[in-house]
Amino acid sequence: MSATAAPERARAPAPPVAEAAGEPAGEVETRLRRAALACFVAKGFHGTSMRDVAREAGCSVSHAYYYYPSKGAILFRLMRDITAELDARLAAAEDRAGPDPARRLAALVRAHVLLHTGRQDESFIGNSELRSLDADRLAEVMVLRDRVAARFLAAVAAGVAAGDFACPTPRETARAIVTMTTAVATWYRADGPQSPETVAGQYADMALRLVGAGAGKDGP
Amino acid sequence: MSATAAPERARAPAPPVAEAAGEPAGEVETRLRRAALACFVAKGFHGTSMRDVAREAGCSVSHAYYYYPSKGAILFRLMRDITAELDARLAAAEDRAGPDPARRLAALVRAHVLLHTGRQDESFIGNSELRSLDADRLAEVMVLRDRVAARFLAAVAAGVAAGDFACPTPRETARAIVTMTTAVATWYRADGPQSPETVAGQYADMALRLVGAGAGKDGP
Repeated sequence: MSATAAPERARAPAPPVAEAAGEPAGEVETRLRRAALACFVAKGFHGTSMRDVAREAGCSVSHAYYYYPSKGAILFRLMRDITAELDARLAAAEDRAGPDPARRLAALVRAHVLLHTGRQDESFIGNSELRSLDADRLAEVMVLRDRVAARFLAAVAAGVAAGDFACPTPRETARAIVTMTTAVATWYRADGPQSPETVAGQYADMALRLVGAGAGKDGP
Repeated sequence: MSATAAPERARAPAPPVAEAAGEPAGEVETRLRRAALACFVAKGFHGTSMRDVAREAGCSVSHAYYYYPSKGAILFRLMRDITAELDARLAAAEDRAGPDPARRLAALVRAHVLLHTGRQDESFIGNSELRSLDADRLAEVMVLRDRVAARFLAAVAAGVAAGDFACPTPRETARAIVTMTTAVATWYRADGPQSPETVAGQYADMALRLVGAGAGKDGP
């Protein structure tokens, strides 16, 4: 800290800013988050120490603590960011789709699948490590998750109200759509036979079958 | 951090059999598995030591090692048992339902949902800790999981072949049905408003909508 530091301090690592000479702080933070994500995926939050994260990121433990006060803070940041990005992508998909319920639901499903094929690690941690967030952080993430779920429910309910969907259980159906598309992250392989867009289209079709799209107005 | 079994061994308590005097070995094993499940759910496999499991089970570490050579062996046993039980329940449901594809699919979905509302902890670990099984054990669990998935695909394919289901993507639809019903374990609350049977019925109906049941033969 000061120039008259105790002998122990003399052997302490240089302050983080000097240590990261030439590297913008934002890049170090990103590197730490990526490292934490890799560690959490491999060994879980409780199986990972801040030392593991620092090693994976190629920096010192004190450097890691300079950017994040705890591994819990990194976990929160990862979860909040991925859920906020998901919500933003869904909002954009709604805007592009316009008010037609079937188009809107299909657009939501496509956007949901595309995020989950592209960000599988974050999705896995986002679903397996909710238990590891403290109460305040969990509440903040849940607000975002609820907002995501509400978009699907609103789309299904709008279709039912318009007579476009023949769906006796809108709430349960909206949840089923969210969970089956979230689960894409658990099995999708980028080196497999199907492109993310193909899978997204299949799930949009399945969602429309689930809500009975078209059956409401044009049924027998 | 790591399971520090060796130091504990040095202070070895009385042999397990004497220590468990009066308690059948099967009950100790069950207690250890339940304890491990609770620990894995709370902190993940890598965040749990054999010492944690023994403490939770109320026995010594050496006692725990007498029954299971490692925490990996307990994890495997938990995963194999729950998946084998799921497969057995699905087989029984198929037998009761008979050959009609819609009845058969609905019965499979009901059985799948009922297991996942009743065994949420094992389901969570079964899906979040596949990463923690060694290769041989993972392969053995995957054989069982593939058998479960194959039952759903066979039911969907049979309905399509019979002209009972109008389903352009049987493989993808069967997978969506498995994942949306598996996910019930992540949100179902036993103290919530819906009984397991109600949820099971809703998911059976949704599965039949997904496969276009009735639309094949009786469509416009």
